[in-house]
Amino acid sequence: MASSSLRFAQPTSANGILKTKTNTFFTRRVFPFTQFTNKSLVSNARAITKLTCVNGRTEIATCNHIIGEKTELAPLKIGIIGFGNFGQFIAKGMRRQGHSVLATSRSDYSEYCKQNGIQFFRNMEALCEEQPDVILVCSSILSTENIIRSIPFHKLNPDTIFADVLSVKQFPRNLFIEVLPPRFGIVCTHPMFGPESGKNGWIELPFVFEKVRVSDVGSQAEKCTQFLNIFEQEGCRMVEMSCEEHDRHAAGSQFITHTIGRVLSHLNLESTPINTKGYETLLQLTENSVSDSFDLYYGLFMYNVNATEQMDNLDRAFETVKQKLYGRLHDILRKQIVERVPMQGASKAKSTNPGSYLLPDKTSITQLTSLTIPEMNLSEAVAVSSHR
Amino acid sequence: MASSSLRFAQPTSANGILKTKTNTFFTRRVFPFTQFTNKSLVSNARAITKLTCVNGRTEIATCNHIIGEKTELAPLKIGIIGFGNFGQFIAKGMRRQGHSVLATSRSDYSEYCKQNGIQFFRNMEALCEEQPDVILVCSSILSTENIIRSIPFHKLNPDTIFADVLSVKQFPRNLFIEVLPPRFGIVCTHPMFGPESGKNGWIELPFVFEKVRVSDVGSQAEKCTQFLNIFEQEGCRMVEMSCEEHDRHAAGSQFITHTIGRVLSHLNLESTPINTKGYETLLQLTENSVSDSFDLYYGLFMYNVNATEQMDNLDRAFETVKQKLYGRLHDILRKQIVERVPMQGASKAKSTNPGSYLLPDKTSITQLTSLTIPEMNLSEAVAVSSHR
Repeated sequence: MASSSLRFAQPTSANGILKTKTNTFFTRRVFPFTQFTNKSLVSNARAITKLTCVNGRTEIATCNHIIGEKTELAPLKIGIIGFGNFGQFIAKGMRRQGHSVLATSRSDYSEYCKQNGIQFFRNMEALCEEQPDVILVCSSILSTENIIRSIPFHKLNPDTIFADVLSVKQFPRNLFIEVLPPRFGIVCTHPMFGPESGKNGWIELPFVFEKVRVSDVGSQAEKCTQFLNIFEQEGCRMVEMSCEEHDRHAAGSQFITHTIGRVLSHLNLESTPINTKGYETLLQLTENSVSDSFDLYYGLFMYNVNATEQMDNLDRAFETVKQKLYGRLHDILRKQIVERVPMQGASKAKSTNPGSYLLPDKTSITQLTSLTIPEMNLSEAVAVSSHR
Repeated sequence: MASSSLRFAQPTSANGILKTKTNTFFTRRVFPFTQFTNKSLVSNARAITKLTCVNGRTEIATCNHIIGEKTELAPLKIGIIGFGNFGQFIAKGMRRQGHSVLATSRSDYSEYCKQNGIQFFRNMEALCEEQPDVILVCSSILSTENIIRSIPFHKLNPDTIFADVLSVKQFPRNLFIEVLPPRFGIVCTHPMFGPESGKNGWIELPFVFEKVRVSDVGSQAEKCTQFLNIFEQEGCRMVEMSCEEHDRHAAGSQFITHTIGRVLSHLNLESTPINTKGYETLLQLTENSVSDSFDLYYGLFMYNVNATEQMDNLDRAFETVKQKLYGRLHDILRKQIVERVPMQGASKAKSTNPGSYLLPDKTSITQLTSLTIPEMNLSEAVAVSSHR
């Protein structure tokens, strides 16, 4: 485990001094590539290559091992509760960064865990008896409250850190504050990516976090930093943000995106021989949306206090667009009916009723040339319509 | 003009024999690169490089010049009516392929035309007196009928070909058939791209066309082929399709895409510090949609007989999603109100009315932990909801 627990900071200053936002354990040493026996460390190998280019010589900060000094940070023991699709995805990052991962879930993932160097526990009690440094809640939004309330807190170390990865943030923050014993640390996080968008690595993908409650006494602060470092070392763009601010932004962006994807999924869109580029992005969006569960979408709506407002905004926006289309249609019809302006081409069209001022039905439209107005300038008609 | 009118076919068979779908004038000759003095022919130079790789020796089919034979096809003289954003964009392809471009428009584009080797005419009469081989209508959908009806047909050659690039196809086809003198040829086309999506070239972008009326007598068929070759040589994916079929596909894809973009534009979406990848595609879609005029969008709706049905589908899809969200919310509330299942955490929450079964208001939700149901299994609640 030790050799795979090496992690490397990125240079943030021009003179080549290495820094991480959340970690101050530094050292300089040329590190041979051959030490990377773990395949999952390819991304670190890449980071080193980059550093070599920057500095001429390789400068490396290890986060777990202070080489040449006496202190040595052990890898974290992270207990993941809820080991579905997302839990498994996020666990890979923890393993790449050399930490121990323990997991429990309603379903049995013991086989998967065995193959991926993860300890699986059939129930929460057994996992808690291992006294993980961090309990990472990866359950669905809907089941989180029941799960949190069923954790045997008395089996855990008193300085355990609780973290979550839910797509809403005020809800788990308030739940943690209400339910957890006061000495437990609380870090609320939201990796703004998942198995699909993060399949080629986590570089530059946003990771939102708020250190809600971290004690200065004991090792809580250090372990919290170590935990956040996992994501920073994987290349995430670290965004420290309050839970309120997250939920406001997320309702206006992520929830809207999911809603559009959900709406489109009900249209049964299909690829055509004449797809535009824009249409292809919609097809992709739809596919991504339905690959997430409806429960997730419902959670984004139900557990974000800003979602209803965004839903109303979307509703209004759709109504506005419809009104603009149908309103203009009515303007043209009214011109014909009230002001007796005949429809363009009406006299030439093979209609049984050439003097009619009524809008033709769908079949007739296919035959007719247009619904524009001949005796008035088109831009005039548009002006009339937009000035109503 | 002669040197810049050379065009090259792409190989369609494994043995290196060159063929185009719409042109049968072939020849073989090694063509030195130095002959390309026109910068706009860079794409052809690229095509040759590709051919060299394919065949070992360069095999080139010229469409205008049958080298070593007596026939020589002159470049087309293409008169563009309506020279806005899209007309200018499409004219670049014609110029790259070595054809003469003439243009007229409501606005004065004489300066632009002077700089781009295009003849600009202040009015339709002057343009028609030049007797172009092809009249390409690039007006907006809304103004097309008025424009077509104002063309002085008697000034044109009797075998003139009329083509259009509108985003709807049944309408211009029927209009052409109704209004044009019977000897004029008709080709309805829709390049499924524009200045934005086609800014890096037209390779693999779909080009829809229907040869509505092309005479076998005289040079009409040949000129029609020459015209379509422009797009084929620029790399477009040529899609021969009836106007009806186009409109059916386009309503379900392009119109839906524009509608989503229009709806989103009314939400005033902004980039956040925590954009997901999906949200960024929506921001891009919105930007592209509003860069087109509302008139274009209105045209897609008004002049495509399938658009209303798609609008209705979208309406229903949005209602379905809302119903699924709010319906589930109601289920939970009814459980509380009718079946007297208290809200989870209600006894612990600092409520002035802890026994209340009503949904808390927005402020209270921010304080409360959740709206799940404690005494029943969550998955049970979900099952109840989805089986209604």
